[in-house]
Amino acid sequence: MEEYIGIKVDALQQFTINVFNKFGVPVEDAKIAAEVLITADQRGVGSHGLQRLKRYTNGLKTGVIKPIVDVKVLKETPNTLLISGGDGLGQVVGYKAMKLVIDKALKNNIAFAAVRDSNHYGIAGYYSMMALEHDLIGLSLTNAAPLVVPTHGKNAVMGTNPISIAVPAGKERPFVLDMAASTVPRGKLEVYEREGKIMPITWATDELGNPTQNIPRVLANLLDKKGGGLLPLGGAEEESGGHKGYGLCLVVDIFSGVLSGSEFGPNLYARKDIPAKVAHFFGAIKIDAFIELALFKSMMDEYINILKNSEKAAGKDRIFIHGEKEFELYEQQKEEVRLYYKVVEELRNIGEEVNIKAPF
Amino acid sequence: MEEYIGIKVDALQQFTINVFNKFGVPVEDAKIAAEVLITADQRGVGSHGLQRLKRYTNGLKTGVIKPIVDVKVLKETPNTLLISGGDGLGQVVGYKAMKLVIDKALKNNIAFAAVRDSNHYGIAGYYSMMALEHDLIGLSLTNAAPLVVPTHGKNAVMGTNPISIAVPAGKERPFVLDMAASTVPRGKLEVYEREGKIMPITWATDELGNPTQNIPRVLANLLDKKGGGLLPLGGAEEESGGHKGYGLCLVVDIFSGVLSGSEFGPNLYARKDIPAKVAHFFGAIKIDAFIELALFKSMMDEYINILKNSEKAAGKDRIFIHGEKEFELYEQQKEEVRLYYKVVEELRNIGEEVNIKAPF
Repeated sequence: MEEYIGIKVDALQQFTINVFNKFGVPVEDAKIAAEVLITADQRGVGSHGLQRLKRYTNGLKTGVIKPIVDVKVLKETPNTLLISGGDGLGQVVGYKAMKLVIDKALKNNIAFAAVRDSNHYGIAGYYSMMALEHDLIGLSLTNAAPLVVPTHGKNAVMGTNPISIAVPAGKERPFVLDMAASTVPRGKLEVYEREGKIMPITWATDELGNPTQNIPRVLANLLDKKGGGLLPLGGAEEESGGHKGYGLCLVVDIFSGVLSGSEFGPNLYARKDIPAKVAHFFGAIKIDAFIELALFKSMMDEYINILKNSEKAAGKDRIFIHGEKEFELYEQQKEEVRLYYKVVEELRNIGEEVNIKAPF
Repeated sequence: MEEYIGIKVDALQQFTINVFNKFGVPVEDAKIAAEVLITADQRGVGSHGLQRLKRYTNGLKTGVIKPIVDVKVLKETPNTLLISGGDGLGQVVGYKAMKLVIDKALKNNIAFAAVRDSNHYGIAGYYSMMALEHDLIGLSLTNAAPLVVPTHGKNAVMGTNPISIAVPAGKERPFVLDMAASTVPRGKLEVYEREGKIMPITWATDELGNPTQNIPRVLANLLDKKGGGLLPLGGAEEESGGHKGYGLCLVVDIFSGVLSGSEFGPNLYARKDIPAKVAHFFGAIKIDAFIELALFKSMMDEYINILKNSEKAAGKDRIFIHGEKEFELYEQQKEEVRLYYKVVEELRNIGEEVNIKAPF
């Protein structure tokens, strides 16, 4: 049986926009949300693509995600913004906030926005990459549901808190780092379980806080908040650098949750009947405030080529630049995107619920 | 035999200032360099303390580090700076650049400086922490000698490229992340060798690019540029998140080396007879551009207390906040600092070379 199904991007977009719209989201905002989700699938990050549509439509149904929002600037200076997302879709909030940041950076060299009252915004890299077409460096951070344990801690009190930084290059593709501050996100455990792979000992801990390779146990413990969780980048111990991943988790949450005066750490997603209170942080930096753009781009190209042409370790045949794999997948999936068959089934069911026939 | 010797900080400072001065560094600048180095020892980061004095005096002697420099602003806007350090001592360049960044941030909410033509600047955290007394968030990044291999790569083409972010709190101590983007810095291998400990497999690779636990081999290969090197945070493979540490190495170098139009990656420390061309990046952010400072500080306190009071993993008795260990060591060593006896011996020898009697 074929596990993945190819679907035309146009049809998928129209379907997703219609679904969001039926749940009360204005068409313009539905377009943004659909675009961010499908871009994730096209870039091969299925865990943050349409696989999550049900969570969003559920949120819209129960009212913890508001369909109609006014992304509101609460405080503003020439290079800073404090924004409330009004508990709307994270994609819509993120897109609009990053637009404002880009405008300010184009005028004033640097701009940052701390964003409160939002929801899960999908791939962090979507927003950092928005800066690229303006030849800006883009930054996108978000806090997230508490799934990660601090070094020496038993309980998951921090999110996987991704960091994305997008940097323009010249002839080469841009550099796009988009990484969770945990060793892996939760979705990776699900993939390993589905594929029958063994989870490395550096990924998660059990309910006593001991490193474990038992995926179902970790997932069940996280669901029931029984203790244990995902490990920060670097694993369980300081010797392997786990305190560094733990520190990066905190940095992201300080810039997102704390600097926006929103919820942080274990206080996100506190209850299922109230808004999740996710917070983001966006930034943009104008390169020619420092050096000439053309020089910067040629230096980026040179650096990328040094790395790509550098000698390979035994048994390895390629050194990747961050974002490169995703750009290649995106180019392959520009017209048609491959979705896991269970995701397609779920999409059909979501459609039926609101009387929209899936065109696939 | 006692391996560590306690020395009065005042005496040590005067000695170090005199030494730098004898090598041609003006007293005011010598004070800065001494202060940064001794602070590292007081904070327990001996690898970046006076243990390195010889490298600096050697550099001053051979002329690759310039004793008298004019830290020069090459380009300036209300919130950005491009600075040349004139190949001076990294500590002096870093201190002066961060001062300028702080001034600008106090006036314009955010400020960044890309700094070129510098040298090894000691602990990254010294400069980020300079922001704390002004209630600013501080950022300090630097590129470094190429010792780290990219994921799937055989050769060390990037530095350990530390990231330091300092964030004020209220009643609690500030949060001070100060981490190399490699799993460990080179100095840690030397410590493990000295103490006869076994190096974890996630720290370094041999000349073929295979993970190894053979410390002397790694150190010799790095010295002779024979291949292999330190592994990025996360280890050798993508499965353990090594590409994330590799990405962080690049981010630091893009902001330092590339954005300042300086050297980057394998081009630093290219020859022993020319300046190293180290580059830094500094930033400062005004908190009340976003939310009220008092609210921010109380939220930081709350977050720190949640973490510290969170349940511990089996066999662990304390959860640390970043910088906490170093603050405790600093408080213990405010008056008297403990130095490894070989370091003290070396200091005496350096002193003799310029006719300064060590007062210890």
